[in-house]
Amino acid sequence: MKTLVIVSHPEMANSLVQNFLKASATPFQDEVTWHDLATIQQLDVAVEQALLRNHERIIFQFPLYWYAAPASLKTWLDTVLTGEFAFSGRMPLQGKSLGVVVSTGIAGKHFQAGGSEQATLSEILRPYELVARKLGMTYLPPLAIHQFSYLTETARQLLLVDYQRYLTQTTFNFEQKVAWFEQQLRQRQSVATDSEQQQQLALLADQLTEQGELLTDLGWQVQLIRQEEGEG
Amino acid sequence: MKTLVIVSHPEMANSLVQNFLKASATPFQDEVTWHDLATIQQLDVAVEQALLRNHERIIFQFPLYWYAAPASLKTWLDTVLTGEFAFSGRMPLQGKSLGVVVSTGIAGKHFQAGGSEQATLSEILRPYELVARKLGMTYLPPLAIHQFSYLTETARQLLLVDYQRYLTQTTFNFEQKVAWFEQQLRQRQSVATDSEQQQQLALLADQLTEQGELLTDLGWQVQLIRQEEGEG
Repeated sequence: MKTLVIVSHPEMANSLVQNFLKASATPFQDEVTWHDLATIQQLDVAVEQALLRNHERIIFQFPLYWYAAPASLKTWLDTVLTGEFAFSGRMPLQGKSLGVVVSTGIAGKHFQAGGSEQATLSEILRPYELVARKLGMTYLPPLAIHQFSYLTETARQLLLVDYQRYLTQTTFNFEQKVAWFEQQLRQRQSVATDSEQQQQLALLADQLTEQGELLTDLGWQVQLIRQEEGEG
Repeated sequence: MKTLVIVSHPEMANSLVQNFLKASATPFQDEVTWHDLATIQQLDVAVEQALLRNHERIIFQFPLYWYAAPASLKTWLDTVLTGEFAFSGRMPLQGKSLGVVVSTGIAGKHFQAGGSEQATLSEILRPYELVARKLGMTYLPPLAIHQFSYLTETARQLLLVDYQRYLTQTTFNFEQKVAWFEQQLRQRQSVATDSEQQQQLALLADQLTEQGELLTDLGWQVQLIRQEEGEG
């Protein structure tokens, strides 16, 4: 799966979180195309449309400014998604997935009724969900990053993996999650130079596979029991 | 009350509805400032902020492109509403009102669950409601214009008056509506050159006042009866 990350940020150089995300995506450069709108002087509609055609997952990545993406993403939407491209003939984006990676300077708890923002991110990002729907795309649950600069080192490590999975994991279920981690371990194993490290990575990957299968089996059994009990 | 109409439309000259609205606002040029973003080469933040300070009602007026205003309004929001302006010290826009005049090429019935757009305009325009809330402004119910080119002459006349009221009527209740129409009639009367026409306009205005008072009285009586019946 090829993923296109469309970054809309007016001050990329000064953004800690955007630079962190860029570094997190770097090991996946075979699969992930980093597309920073701030580096584009004049949008070439044909080039942008070709990018959309050549990727299966599209990511809108931006800081939340006045309850929406910065203007550069709206310019991109208004310019690139012409009616002719989006709707005439076979819809070229149908069946692809659209994800939103949104960073905010406000804690997550404020995005709810009664919080300082009074609305959830699902409500605020609704226009992007509607764009996905209109184009026949699957809308992924947004990945929200709140107050990045306050995150601990551990929280950043978890974010890094969550972000990498958001860009590259084909479907978001337990089996695919296990498969994704296993693949990462096998890849690291294949490039490890130290034989002891290689063995450790192989062992970890084997354990993960085994436990993953066990947990999947258990999941099925629980579902069966529930169905028999009439709760399913 | 002074009203600032911020128009965001990339092709103003080709827009039937925008030109219709502009003509509708023209008789109110003492109260209404028409501010077409397409005519501005480079936003002067201080000038824009002064405009906001000097008007009590702000209108965002635009066609719906990909479930939001065109990019020029987002550029305006991101550039003009600096944190320092919006939040430092006394909030300069607190107590003012924010209206949205939105035109769509799609019939109104499609903006609901099950319709082709799957969402109401209230949901789609939520980010502007949140901007108003954040700035301490009163959010007015949006004025939506669907498929302007299909409107009959009568529907256009009604739209003209609705739009004029949206820009200039201070509060949206029955008494203010009657007062607004009365004021329009008195004004026309004062500039009429034909004495017969003057008399007719005076008569109409008097009737309107009388009937308005009668209807207001009846409204109060109904409310009283309801309260006595315990339904209030």
